Amino acid sequence: MCQLLGMNCNVPTDICFSFEGFSARGGKTDHHSDGWGIAFFEEKGCRIFLDSQPSVISPVAELVRNFPIHSTHVIAHIRKATQGEIALHNCHPFRRELWGRYWVFAHNGNLPDFRHHSMGFYQAVGNTDSEKAFCLMLETLRKCFPQGKPPLKELYLILRKITQEIAQIGVFNYLLSDGEHFFTHCSTKLSYIVRQAPFAAAHLIDQDMTVDFRELTTESDRVAVIATTPLTDNEVWTPIQPGELLVFQDGWPLKHAFD
Amino acid sequence: MCQLLGMNCNVPTDICFSFEGFSARGGKTDHHSDGWGIAFFEEKGCRIFLDSQPSVISPVAELVRNFPIHSTHVIAHIRKATQGEIALHNCHPFRRELWGRYWVFAHNGNLPDFRHHSMGFYQAVGNTDSEKAFCLMLETLRKCFPQGKPPLKELYLILRKITQEIAQIGVFNYLLSDGEHFFTHCSTKLSYIVRQAPFAAAHLIDQDMTVDFRELTTESDRVAVIATTPLTDNEVWTPIQPGELLVFQDGWPLKHAFD
Repeated sequence: MCQLLGMNCNVPTDICFSFEGFSARGGKTDHHSDGWGIAFFEEKGCRIFLDSQPSVISPVAELVRNFPIHSTHVIAHIRKATQGEIALHNCHPFRRELWGRYWVFAHNGNLPDFRHHSMGFYQAVGNTDSEKAFCLMLETLRKCFPQGKPPLKELYLILRKITQEIAQIGVFNYLLSDGEHFFTHCSTKLSYIVRQAPFAAAHLIDQDMTVDFRELTTESDRVAVIATTPLTDNEVWTPIQPGELLVFQDGWPLKHAFD
Repeated sequence: MCQLLGMNCNVPTDICFSFEGFSARGGKTDHHSDGWGIAFFEEKGCRIFLDSQPSVISPVAELVRNFPIHSTHVIAHIRKATQGEIALHNCHPFRRELWGRYWVFAHNGNLPDFRHHSMGFYQAVGNTDSEKAFCLMLETLRKCFPQGKPPLKELYLILRKITQEIAQIGVFNYLLSDGEHFFTHCSTKLSYIVRQAPFAAAHLIDQDMTVDFRELTTESDRVAVIATTPLTDNEVWTPIQPGELLVFQDGWPLKHAFD
């Protein structure tokens, strides 16, 4: 299995603190050491740092921990290989273009015997169940909305349908974003926290490190952090319910907006 | 305009030496300081480092200069913006998936008033002429070969045809690769050098730095380096002829193979 980390904010924010704790799980405080990756959206642009080395020793991860990249939509992943060998082409997050936007996807779980016969748009480059599932999701969205990105509610309902179908095959926790919306699906385990004024200090579980967000934020900032398991031990994280597809926008979960 | 740097080898090789000189042109020895990027293929996998900061001050470029990534197909670009604002979504190289492989593209030149109306597969995310041209090229290949990647000669002939059409619009020097083949097109300015045994020392033009390749190579290594203008001052670089689409494989130009 693997672990997921996501961030969605109303103003570009760096993820150095959360990534510090998260990346320790890639070989130090946990065993997810078969590669890692992180995607940052900067407006419509997107850059992804990947490495098949464990995140605790990767020089690229060292850069990401120390170089503050400000982004509103971040998706990170540390890998414990289940399907597909340890190689760059199997590192998450994966990225494709749809409707003139980049879409980025990372998966925690396992989809045994998952097969995706491409309908002509997207093909997996690597050999993970995860990338195949991502291709199927985008292909489904593309077929349903050939003219371009639909209003969020329409998009959500189709995405939920295909997600539910895939989730019947196996464990399918995921993060998905196009830099505008941020989708999170919980199959078994995924939690989030929203940080906003009044800010406080937070202490990592995986490293003895504390950050006082009062010193780093303004009154109107709002940041949602989503992770497989909580990253801090002095804050209350909210579990996403199994079977729930939750959308974040501007650092806030849009709960019950589409029922 | 911009500058291009490419590398194609028969064994995975790092590009630290060439990138040291090349990246100096992004704000120090030349004025291509509107962002940069570099793509490394590692088998079918591909990772791209991008930054909209000048390459001489970018912490990500610093990582690329110092962290040896071994790759057989590398495409790098430093940008002097002509079309499209300075932003991450306009930084080259661009990447899309076709036939279950990643394709990477970087362009030097300018295509005034270039328009590409997507035929349904690929859309530009940013607003450069370069990304639109890339989308058109991939879309053309996809339409011509819907079943998958054809033999190299068939691919070459179609690629040359669409390249010639686009090159009528403006300056269209480019590097294109899928991690298997490495295509270079010269519209006005592009040179290459093939380094192989007996190896010698090379001295950069843009930095006072020398590397003795005898100490770093084995007898059977072969490395082609392609650049807008030569990177070294003690080696003989071969200009690619204007109008020529040259394919490299295993560090060697396949000249006249497709006529």
